[in-house]
Amino acid sequence: MGKRIVIIGGVAAGPKAACRVKRVMPDADVTLIDQDSLISYGGCGIPYYVSGDVADEKELRSTSFHMLRDEYFFEKAKGVKTLTSTRALLINRREKFVTLENVRSGERSNISYDNLMIATGSQPVVLPIPGKDADGVFTISDLHKAIEIKDRIARGGVGKAVVIGGGAIGIEMAEALTDLWGVETAIVEYMDQLLPRIVDWPMAEALAQHLREHNVEVFLGEPAAEILEKDGKAVGVRTARRTLEADMVIMAAGVRPRSQLARDAGLHVSDLGAIVVNERMQTSDPSIYAAGDCVEIRHLVTGKNLFAPLGSLANKEGRVAADNMAGIPSIFRGGIASFVMKAFDMSIGATGISLETARAEGFEADVSLTAPSDRAHFFPGSAIVCLEMVFDRRTRRVLGLQGIGPMNDALSVRLDAAAVAISAGATIETFTNMEMAYAPPFSTAIDAINAAAYVAENLCDGRMRQITLRSYVDWLADFSSRPDWVALDVRHVKQAEPLVGKFGPEKWLSVPYEEVRDRYRELPQDKTLIIICNAGSRSFEVQVFLDSVGWKNTMVMPGGFNLIRRMDASLMA
Amino acid sequence: MGKRIVIIGGVAAGPKAACRVKRVMPDADVTLIDQDSLISYGGCGIPYYVSGDVADEKELRSTSFHMLRDEYFFEKAKGVKTLTSTRALLINRREKFVTLENVRSGERSNISYDNLMIATGSQPVVLPIPGKDADGVFTISDLHKAIEIKDRIARGGVGKAVVIGGGAIGIEMAEALTDLWGVETAIVEYMDQLLPRIVDWPMAEALAQHLREHNVEVFLGEPAAEILEKDGKAVGVRTARRTLEADMVIMAAGVRPRSQLARDAGLHVSDLGAIVVNERMQTSDPSIYAAGDCVEIRHLVTGKNLFAPLGSLANKEGRVAADNMAGIPSIFRGGIASFVMKAFDMSIGATGISLETARAEGFEADVSLTAPSDRAHFFPGSAIVCLEMVFDRRTRRVLGLQGIGPMNDALSVRLDAAAVAISAGATIETFTNMEMAYAPPFSTAIDAINAAAYVAENLCDGRMRQITLRSYVDWLADFSSRPDWVALDVRHVKQAEPLVGKFGPEKWLSVPYEEVRDRYRELPQDKTLIIICNAGSRSFEVQVFLDSVGWKNTMVMPGGFNLIRRMDASLMA
Repeated sequence: MGKRIVIIGGVAAGPKAACRVKRVMPDADVTLIDQDSLISYGGCGIPYYVSGDVADEKELRSTSFHMLRDEYFFEKAKGVKTLTSTRALLINRREKFVTLENVRSGERSNISYDNLMIATGSQPVVLPIPGKDADGVFTISDLHKAIEIKDRIARGGVGKAVVIGGGAIGIEMAEALTDLWGVETAIVEYMDQLLPRIVDWPMAEALAQHLREHNVEVFLGEPAAEILEKDGKAVGVRTARRTLEADMVIMAAGVRPRSQLARDAGLHVSDLGAIVVNERMQTSDPSIYAAGDCVEIRHLVTGKNLFAPLGSLANKEGRVAADNMAGIPSIFRGGIASFVMKAFDMSIGATGISLETARAEGFEADVSLTAPSDRAHFFPGSAIVCLEMVFDRRTRRVLGLQGIGPMNDALSVRLDAAAVAISAGATIETFTNMEMAYAPPFSTAIDAINAAAYVAENLCDGRMRQITLRSYVDWLADFSSRPDWVALDVRHVKQAEPLVGKFGPEKWLSVPYEEVRDRYRELPQDKTLIIICNAGSRSFEVQVFLDSVGWKNTMVMPGGFNLIRRMDASLMA
Repeated sequence: MGKRIVIIGGVAAGPKAACRVKRVMPDADVTLIDQDSLISYGGCGIPYYVSGDVADEKELRSTSFHMLRDEYFFEKAKGVKTLTSTRALLINRREKFVTLENVRSGERSNISYDNLMIATGSQPVVLPIPGKDADGVFTISDLHKAIEIKDRIARGGVGKAVVIGGGAIGIEMAEALTDLWGVETAIVEYMDQLLPRIVDWPMAEALAQHLREHNVEVFLGEPAAEILEKDGKAVGVRTARRTLEADMVIMAAGVRPRSQLARDAGLHVSDLGAIVVNERMQTSDPSIYAAGDCVEIRHLVTGKNLFAPLGSLANKEGRVAADNMAGIPSIFRGGIASFVMKAFDMSIGATGISLETARAEGFEADVSLTAPSDRAHFFPGSAIVCLEMVFDRRTRRVLGLQGIGPMNDALSVRLDAAAVAISAGATIETFTNMEMAYAPPFSTAIDAINAAAYVAENLCDGRMRQITLRSYVDWLADFSSRPDWVALDVRHVKQAEPLVGKFGPEKWLSVPYEEVRDRYRELPQDKTLIIICNAGSRSFEVQVFLDSVGWKNTMVMPGGFNLIRRMDASLMA
């Protein structure tokens, strides 16, 4: 018999590694262990199972050729010994064995290894608030919970729900509850935006507005203080500002690495609780590997450690661990936490780091905000994709890209292409000439990603000066905060008219783009002109022209109406 | 007045450069010249205008904010002097002026320049065959022709059409004629596949089958010998094998650079007729630039010169030329001819070079062929995307990626991400860990592009041996050509059954994937087993297992039924 490889954890990285080892080292003796009875499921599919898009939980556990990934599958098809409902209690590193316990019978046994791999994943954070253990409070920790949630809704009796946490899982669950089941759902988020630290405020605002348009209430900057109970059942959630009724509470307040076993074995674990591994996915004990949600990897932008519990990374890490256990030198350089999600009719995603993170990391960071068409504007079905490109003014390196788009792959195209370049440390100039396959049904001759880079370049080179969206929104809400600012709306007169009417012709000037060269002398020179169009590009051209004739006190409103109306339709009505 | 910049050519690179110059050097005196009356149109949109997807040709000439890009627009909005219906007759390089002729009045004049830019584009190849000048024979050279084609069809009387040339424009026109107007359309292509030199045979076959399924006749390896005429009107096309009736003939036999003006001026022009430029888009005369379809650029994979008449490249080249004319140092490194197109319900595209090209260029090239799901297979609407990754076995460099997918952005996502890496000279290992944003509605945890790289890696490392699709198809058509070959179908018994019935149990063995470990001793060792599944991955696993137990005479059928049934449904019925 060959090398004895024991893998603890059977959801993503574990099964991937087990199967890969058997492929590259067929005589290896591979054992896959999980404390759960259900293994190798697509955890990211849980919201779609709850919503009903995926009818049966078995689909989440099946291959594309419709075979259930159960013990039989791993044993027969993959040649991997599979012990489910089996908990790993402790690792004896000196004698190289793991003590196991059958969670049903309580029976204990030891299993020896030449290489051990820990793929214990992550666990949901349970907020230490009153009522957290009430009936009807759920975390999205495993498939059993998902089944229980869906069963409970299907049986009726869930009319209102509160999701605690405005991260991806919380939002996906809110959509599932609202859209398919008609449950009145509210999200309460501790931070002052959705998807905190993942996207910046403009994109998060657009997401929040979209959720509200789809009947999900969103309360930001409101930590859940208490889950209200009645007879042991959850009946509501109280925040500092309000009390929300709820028959069901989803606690989606993030996840943390499940690393107690590693810690108990004396392996190096970070302050945040993630197992520390090298580029071969080796822990501080060279015969023990780890991969998936329980580890931290290297962030390819910041160079720091990154805890990124993503199924895409878990599988790649698992494969690299497997290769190394099988004697094939293989490297996992790190990641940049590329992320995308569906929210009703929109997609939102990010790769690399946000502006907020970039500034915290000490970059001289700035952003280009654009809102062009995802494909030829004359092609039926074209839509706007809003992109924020984060870059370092000093080095011109692109640090991140985030955006919102229609509910198709239009955003993914740009994120994935950007991720390749960002992972390689590319500068803005790589993006200006990035070659995106073009035909009118798919993109534009100057692709959205090129356009984003053009703006970044113009900003870096001092050819463009912009207002931040925060300042713009604040000013719109209260002109007296900046009495010297005046809007210059360069769209068609008909488009500007309602706003001229609303704000008055002193505050809202209307000079169409193509008339500025002839009429610029009408514009005040003692005011700051906020130049506004639909996407930002006409505004930039007008700024450049006004600069050339001495009207230099201007700022472009980046992304234009295409973006701002997605953030708050009422502001621009 | 500032620098005098004259730009000849007003479709893509020319207008782009004119506007960019005015933005970065607002006091420049920029003149844009075109012999046509219609300028700055989306030429790639012509097939969608003919089909009716785009109702009015003006949409192809309008901005996303619905302004017509005519002389008024360029003068007023952009500050660019615009001379349409004006032909550039000759360039006097010594005295730096261009002699112009008004094509209506015949009036001549000279215009002086400090920098000149040539953006004269390309012109369709007119095959020197009898009947080429008959009424009803069209090339897709400009918007006027497109308008004439559409008018003629709309007036009725076009019941049958023949498209000469199976490149992108020919195929797009065939779709436009068939799908929207119900014209019975045939494509005749000189080479033995569609999209020759752009994609390899498997993808081209899948495209041909798809076109045939949508009532487009496709005749390959059949040069058009003659256009038949009656009373000066085209009535058919004759090839060596058949005569096709036609009321309209579209000649789409490729394009060549329009470079006579440059050649007459003594500028360096390549043997193929393309203007030679450096990385600043400068011609052999440092004060003259050129960009767009009339130039050749550097191919970033082969390092050789590339003539790639693509709108996406034209715009980027134009911008770089503009920057340099305005004194901003800017570089266009080259391109890899990324390409994508719609063909009815499918998309097809490529980036980098094909296997055929790679071998001709001396690479030790091989391909990975895969056919996985474009998004989580359990997510509604998921579809198969077939990818061919071309790589060099010696250096492990990825040379190209091509594929077919559903009619959405699923293929573009992979092509565009690949293009970034291929342009940078990346190896297979960059692709195995390429981070693609994942959520079930968008992709799979192991993305299709990762899976393609896994297969390439397994091929390079000698863990996988595959049959070429040509050999497979030849063998299926005539088993006697390879009497020692036997199929091993590892899909479900029910799926294999019809083929066991059709070919007989000696030629078509059925052992399901998950039973191979128990039943491999049933398999013949004196035959070559062609292992077949749906996507190729199970076949690979079976091959690895059989190798480990001494059954080493096997070959994987790459891409499996997912791919082969797209190439020829009848082969697999």
